[in-house]
Amino acid sequence: MKILHTSPREDGFRMPAEFEGHYGCIMIFPHRRDSWQNGAYAARKAFAEIIGIISRSEKMIVCARYEDYDSARFMLPDRVRVIEMESDDSWARDVAPTFVTNGKEIRGIDWGFNAWGGLEDGLYFPWDRDNKMARKLCDSMDIDTYDKRDFILEGGSIHSDGQGTIMTTEACLLSRGRNPELSKAEIERELMDTLGAEKILWLPCGIYNDETNEHVDNICAFTSPAEVVLAWTDNRDDPQYEMSMRCLEYLENETDARGRRITVHKLPLPEPVTMTSEECDGLDDMDGEPTRTPGERLAASYVNFYISNGHVIVPQFGDSNDQKALDILKPLFPQREVVGVYARDILIGGGNIHCITQQIPTYDRSVTGG
Amino acid sequence: MKILHTSPREDGFRMPAEFEGHYGCIMIFPHRRDSWQNGAYAARKAFAEIIGIISRSEKMIVCARYEDYDSARFMLPDRVRVIEMESDDSWARDVAPTFVTNGKEIRGIDWGFNAWGGLEDGLYFPWDRDNKMARKLCDSMDIDTYDKRDFILEGGSIHSDGQGTIMTTEACLLSRGRNPELSKAEIERELMDTLGAEKILWLPCGIYNDETNEHVDNICAFTSPAEVVLAWTDNRDDPQYEMSMRCLEYLENETDARGRRITVHKLPLPEPVTMTSEECDGLDDMDGEPTRTPGERLAASYVNFYISNGHVIVPQFGDSNDQKALDILKPLFPQREVVGVYARDILIGGGNIHCITQQIPTYDRSVTGG
Repeated sequence: MKILHTSPREDGFRMPAEFEGHYGCIMIFPHRRDSWQNGAYAARKAFAEIIGIISRSEKMIVCARYEDYDSARFMLPDRVRVIEMESDDSWARDVAPTFVTNGKEIRGIDWGFNAWGGLEDGLYFPWDRDNKMARKLCDSMDIDTYDKRDFILEGGSIHSDGQGTIMTTEACLLSRGRNPELSKAEIERELMDTLGAEKILWLPCGIYNDETNEHVDNICAFTSPAEVVLAWTDNRDDPQYEMSMRCLEYLENETDARGRRITVHKLPLPEPVTMTSEECDGLDDMDGEPTRTPGERLAASYVNFYISNGHVIVPQFGDSNDQKALDILKPLFPQREVVGVYARDILIGGGNIHCITQQIPTYDRSVTGG
Repeated sequence: MKILHTSPREDGFRMPAEFEGHYGCIMIFPHRRDSWQNGAYAARKAFAEIIGIISRSEKMIVCARYEDYDSARFMLPDRVRVIEMESDDSWARDVAPTFVTNGKEIRGIDWGFNAWGGLEDGLYFPWDRDNKMARKLCDSMDIDTYDKRDFILEGGSIHSDGQGTIMTTEACLLSRGRNPELSKAEIERELMDTLGAEKILWLPCGIYNDETNEHVDNICAFTSPAEVVLAWTDNRDDPQYEMSMRCLEYLENETDARGRRITVHKLPLPEPVTMTSEECDGLDDMDGEPTRTPGERLAASYVNFYISNGHVIVPQFGDSNDQKALDILKPLFPQREVVGVYARDILIGGGNIHCITQQIPTYDRSVTGG
């Protein structure tokens, strides 16, 4: 693995869209007891169901800590590769590398990671195990990696259309816990250089009470170039109404990197999902404080799906909108099977299916050694 | 990775000779403070020199514990893959999988490992991290593995000529710390089934004071089919004289699996290498006892070399026989460069260059996923 300090854009690399072809997918076996209730066993079951589906059409790599390796190996299908790797938590989207491609070779981006806000408003301390994963994953695959550790970014805060457009949120990328020393223009320049992009779409915000400072991947996602789904509610009393409306207005008045107007499909939200007392009782405290409180609203959204080669895997909440979300997504992905997975046990950890996955684009394995 | 319970021989798999083509080589970054003096820094330097040479002609995979990853990455060339993996010590030959091939696909053998003798006369406790490595290495490469954990064996106790002959020592394989419930005939059957072999050559013993119960890889090695080098001394006062003589007599009266007589090249030993007080002072104790004592004779031998695609890497001890050993080996490996590496800092740990390496045979990477 070479550590590169050049510009991916100048090197001819770009971040593909998630709906382009994948070699595989990276996930992390969950373990953190103040994130996942009751020792993470329900979460593991949900992760395993998702891993089972993804691994039907992609090479699946699951990182497990030394002490979790045997359990992961036991729970997961043979066709899944389990590799030993320390982690602080289990959000592969945010700690595994973002991959860029030149159409043949892929390279990893090793962003700085500070647990969604560092000492400003991050969610745990320390986060060094997570921060080291991207580089180690590239190393294990024998893929060269760009050193971007000086720039704080999580994979969940960016989406690419694969054609020069990156979509993000101001709420997250301009937050004080990320790169407060950089101006918006400097952050934009960094994203374009690193992701080989020409234009940044800045949604103002994300999902209400989303503790990632409102990652884009929970509110809006490309389903094809110039086409997105946006998390939506018609309930004007819901604080989300105004947030989704601001995003809609922004998108309706913007064009992508190729000058196309953007078609927005509204994806309804489930009814507010809140923590139960029982669920709270199953969580360790953090430094003497509870990490969740009964009645706390979780950032549930159907937008937090993963697009694999063969499937679109969509969170389900036991809500009357579950089926509606699947029905909206089906015609948008005519070549894939759209499947729902009950994901409350993932949501309790703070994110959802997209947050726990990171795709590895198709590449010519004879070029790199992995 | 599939866990297989069938017989490699019946599946059409055999253990190739080390002098056949390699895809790569596995090593482990040293760390154990009661094995390697002064925090293993001198050992790391010697390992790194060897890794540098091997990686010129093979894919090199180095396992490093979480806490050693950064140091390993810093010390080793870019072209080397460093993967995170817990270990008790650093003897890849004995804890990494033995690989078998059908000419296209390779599979790993996951032998049981008990630190060279378990509670009978093993060298440390516990050894579970080491025992788990073979399977995890196969998993990380997406290579299927045979479950042989019920049979205790270290890779250093066997050599293959790739043509049906396995060479081992009675001193080790019949020792009470390995598989005392099995007869010699049963052990022979297990070796032949698992390694796809037709005949076992049983050298009586190995190198004097070799704490592995006299592994074959320290006393005798195939240099080509029906041709071996044997560690030798002409000094009749050395306890090694009788041991080497017994091996010579055995080999002169045996034939290999194809019925060929075996040509034996004597490889002189260095003058006895003994521990200094300074070296002993640099080692942690084990359970309140020293692991080495001043004046203790180490099992130094030039036979403990590694055959890579491009090189034969031979231990050197600052002895007048160093050059002689290289000169004997050169004509036996006309297509490889024979190079010496000063290896006292490896020897102090209890083995040498062959013991810290494990080759991965050439295979068709489109067959397996890794």
